[in-house]
Formats: sequence, C-alpha cells, structure tokens
Amino acid sequence: MATKKIIIDTDPGIDDTMAIFVALRSPEVDVIGLTTIYGNVYTTLATRNALHLLEVAGRTDIPVAEGSHVTITKGTKLRIADFVHGADGLGNQNFSPPKGKPIEQSAADFLVQQANLYPGQVTVVALGPLTNIALAIQLDPAFPKNIGQIVVLGGAFGVNGNVNPAAEANIFGDPDAADIVFTSGADVVAVGINVTHQVILTDADREVLANSIGKFARYLSKILEVYFAYHHGAYSTRGVYLHDPTALLAAVNPSLITYTEGVVRVQTSGITRGLTILYNKQKRFEEVTEWSDKPTVKVAVTVDAPGVVKMTMERLMDS
Amino acid sequence: MATKKIIIDTDPGIDDTMAIFVALRSPEVDVIGLTTIYGNVYTTLATRNALHLLEVAGRTDIPVAEGSHVTITKGTKLRIADFVHGADGLGNQNFSPPKGKPIEQSAADFLVQQANLYPGQVTVVALGPLTNIALAIQLDPAFPKNIGQIVVLGGAFGVNGNVNPAAEANIFGDPDAADIVFTSGADVVAVGINVTHQVILTDADREVLANSIGKFARYLSKILEVYFAYHHGAYSTRGVYLHDPTALLAAVNPSLITYTEGVVRVQTSGITRGLTILYNKQKRFEEVTEWSDKPTVKVAVTVDAPGVVKMTMERLMDS
Repeated sequence: MATKKIIIDTDPGIDDTMAIFVALRSPEVDVIGLTTIYGNVYTTLATRNALHLLEVAGRTDIPVAEGSHVTITKGTKLRIADFVHGADGLGNQNFSPPKGKPIEQSAADFLVQQANLYPGQVTVVALGPLTNIALAIQLDPAFPKNIGQIVVLGGAFGVNGNVNPAAEANIFGDPDAADIVFTSGADVVAVGINVTHQVILTDADREVLANSIGKFARYLSKILEVYFAYHHGAYSTRGVYLHDPTALLAAVNPSLITYTEGVVRVQTSGITRGLTILYNKQKRFEEVTEWSDKPTVKVAVTVDAPGVVKMTMERLMDS
Repeated sequence: MATKKIIIDTDPGIDDTMAIFVALRSPEVDVIGLTTIYGNVYTTLATRNALHLLEVAGRTDIPVAEGSHVTITKGTKLRIADFVHGADGLGNQNFSPPKGKPIEQSAADFLVQQANLYPGQVTVVALGPLTNIALAIQLDPAFPKNIGQIVVLGGAFGVNGNVNPAAEANIFGDPDAADIVFTSGADVVAVGINVTHQVILTDADREVLANSIGKFARYLSKILEVYFAYHHGAYSTRGVYLHDPTALLAAVNPSLITYTEGVVRVQTSGITRGLTILYNKQKRFEEVTEWSDKPTVKVAVTVDAPGVVKMTMERLMDS
C-alpha cells in the first residue's frame, strides 16, 4: 500500500503540536506540507510555530505555506484562543524564533497545486477554521474533486459547543468558510467535539510522557501545563481533550472512528453563529429546505477513545 | 389536593383535539379556558375549531379567547401545517360551524387576567407557537411570576427539527416569541420532539379507538385518517406522534416525564431560525455568552411512552 499524502492545516496550538508530532511518527502517512491559519493564535504566529515545530522534529524538508489572516467574509473580528494555549500558542515557553521561512505560495495556492499534482491522493487534515480550504475551493472549482479527502476537526453535533452553547471553536472561527467546505461535494469527514470530548489524556498519562525518553513526549509534557490548567478550570475533567490528535488519527487509521452520513449546514449569523446541523434523513420534508439537494459528508459518531490515546502516547514516546 | 387550573393555548389541529379531550376527561385538572393561535391552521379557524370541540364535548361553559393572528415581530409569513391536519385542521370532515362565540378578551388579556386572579395556580399548556404567551409577558411584567407554570410543546433538543433539520414547528412558528418565553423567568417546562417522537399511537391503537363506545374515541378515529396518512408519508413509522397529548399529560401527571434544567435560547434568523439550544452547563465558559445570566427552564429528556399512550387511550375511550 502506498503511504497516504497528507497536508496539515494548522494553528499551533498545543494539541496541534501533538497531532503534527504523531503524524511525523506515523509510517502510514507522508506529511507533504503544513498550511497555517489563525485560531489558537494569529496566522503569523501559527506560521512561526509550524516552522519551529518542524525544526524541533528535524523535518525542515517539509514546506510551510502561510494561510489567510482573515475570515473569508472579510471584516469579522477573529477569536483567538490564547487563553487555552498560551500567548505564544505553545504553553508560554518562549522558544527562540525559527530559522526557516514559509514558502512563497499561499496556503490556498499550495493546496490547489498539490491536489492537482496528486489527484485523489492528498488528504487535508484541517485542525483550525476552514478559511484556507474554502479559498482553495473558490480558487479552483475542481479542488473538491481533486482533493482525496478533507478531515475536518470541527463541529458540535447534537451537543453544546465549546465557544458557547451553540458553536465549536473551529467552525465559529469562520462559519462561512465551513459552510462552503461542507457543501462543496468533496469527500469531507467531520470529527466534532461530540466525539473528541470522549478522548481524554489524563494527568497520569502526562506523567508517563514526562518520564519517557521520547524527544516529542518530553517537549510536549512541558507545553501541556497551560492546556491542562485550562481544562481543569473550564471542565470537570481530570485531563485534556485530544481534539487534534483524534482528527489526525482519523486520517491515519480510519477504523478508530465510525461515521454517519448526511448533509451538514452551518449557521452563519445570530446567537447560534457557527452551529453545525446534520440532517439525519429520519424525516422526509415536504418543503424544500436549506439541506435539500446538497452533497453529503461523513460525521463521526463513535470513537475508540482508548485506541486513540494509546496510539498517540506510543507514537509520541518513540525515541 | 385542589385540582390544577389549566388554560390550553391551541391551534386545533388533530393532536390538539386529542389533548383537549384528554384534558376534559382528567379529574386532576380543571380546564378554565382555551386560547387560540395560528399554527396547524390560521387563528380564525383555530377559534372556530376550539368552539366546535367544546360543543362536541358538551362543555360550552369553558370560555374561548381568540389569540394573535400574526407573529410578535409583525410581517413574518406564517407557516400553516394544513398538510398535516387537513384544510380544516380536523381531518377534512366538514363539520358544521359552531354556535358559540369567543369571549371579547384577547388571549393575552385572558391569560394575564387569570394569572392575576389565581396567582401561582394556573398552568398554561401551550400547544402552538408562543405568540400569545409572549404578548401576555409584554402586557404584564408580573405575568411570569403570577403564572403557575407554562408547559411548552416545542423545541428539538439535540435532534433534527420537523419543519427542517434545525427547527421544530411550534418554535419555528414564532421564534422571537419563544425566546421571550424561555428567558422570561417563568416556571417553563419544554416538551420537545426529542421526547414526543418516542410516543406513538399505532395503527392498531386507532382500530381500538374506532371500535370503542367512547364518544371522543369515535370522533377522533375519523379525523385521525389525515394525520396517519401524513405520518406514513413523512416518517418511517407505523403510527402517529402524540405531541400534544404528551405535553398535556406532562401537566396532568408530571411523573411521566423526567427533566434536565438549563438556559434555552432560540435562534431567530438564518437557516437555523427556530432552533432551540439548551446550555447543559458541562463547560464553564470564559466569555460572556448569550446564555449567561438568563433564567433556566426545565427541558424534558425522557418520557414513559407506554404510560402516555395508555393514559391517552383510556381517557379517550371513557364513555
């Protein structure tokens, strides 16, 4: 079997860091690029962090393409989750600036180019707001057909959001972009917090990482401090949610997750802005709805949580 | 124990008819009035049907107060569910016009008057869009305190709606009114389709009604034809949902349903207009949200479905 080519669209971000490191230790996939986006940090800092992480990993051969600094509908105030990931996005560790630079291409250009170069063979793992992916779709109407799969970490299906009771952070970050991606006709897989909130890295797991000889594990055990502190404050859970590693592993090992299929639309205004609604086809509506005649996507419904935690831990502890 | 005074706010409607008949056969409650609203039919027809049903029941002592003909934010096009209940709202049976007339008071005036007359003792069972209740709140700021309880048949909590994948019909009928009622501070109980879709009257149950000697049962078995035909077409279920009787019985016998408690807000615009979102308090949000500092309501989560069907059948078959 050929290894799967993946591009990680990312706003690093503590759990982004885990996902990137796990990807680099996964023989099933070949990371052919990182594209950056605002979310956990602003895009400029996301680019800096992406370059830094590749230098930590000794993988400066992987190109970084800088993404959009603004939402697809310009003028929307960005919501930056520095209170979750630290002011630097990496647990306030004050790492030195990276030596490398992003490539000249924009994230959207890079995505379109790679999809055309390897039609049907590239998986995008989108760990932040979906602006870059939506821009790629607008840039090249053939992108949804040429891209292999888009794994979206985002949405809150049938559960409360994590920005407010309606919306999950990545979809809230650019609801218009998310609606474009979900209705694009591409092979889209959505991994929402209804699933990732089942995948918890405990305080005890973090101890194990800290005491490991693995380079990535030891790096992470430090930056995880801020992420754990946030979770202890915001949730009644003794650990942190593995949002981004779960989405990444959905691309690496699809059998970890089960899916339902249906049309997903995103509310783009009002108090539930960023809400995702999956039409489950239980009812046949008499009237035409906003969900009628739209392409379907796959939405994660169950996850092998112990399997995801185990795989994440093992790959991070590899020396 | 004193019998509970109830006012049924209704848009009859086939399942409204069942609920009204069950109420009239329930010794636990004293129906002190019907107020009418658009929804299954226009308000004028709802009033006519309410008067007709009280004449069928021999209960013309109960006053009917006509409610609003328009949504609380004027100018919204009404959605009338005549395809569910028939053009006359009562299964296309061409009943003769009623002899009686509604009282001079509007529904909102009547609600306010009764709440002031019997503070804390009146339960409103709201089976249609919530315009009349919201108008009562606007008319008298003390209404939420003076009314005993408001049982709302409405909302789709964590499930698809029945107007479209986002919205349930009664909330969709007047989302602004619903948001006013849910955030009013009154003792509000919401019985949504996540619960009423578990309560099914089967084709076999309808046979039993038709063969009963009960006056109400025989009346209903005729008008139910249209309602069954609609359900057979729209859902993959061999029977009809007992929406309105379930909400009515929630007032008659609270032990049939269990509840969770939290703040409910309603989306009033966009593609998910009419969507209800309950904040379940799982997460403590850092930011102020549209759910912050709002009064809570009770939201039905489980129902003793066989109990509701049995109680509905028994009371309708009483001769």
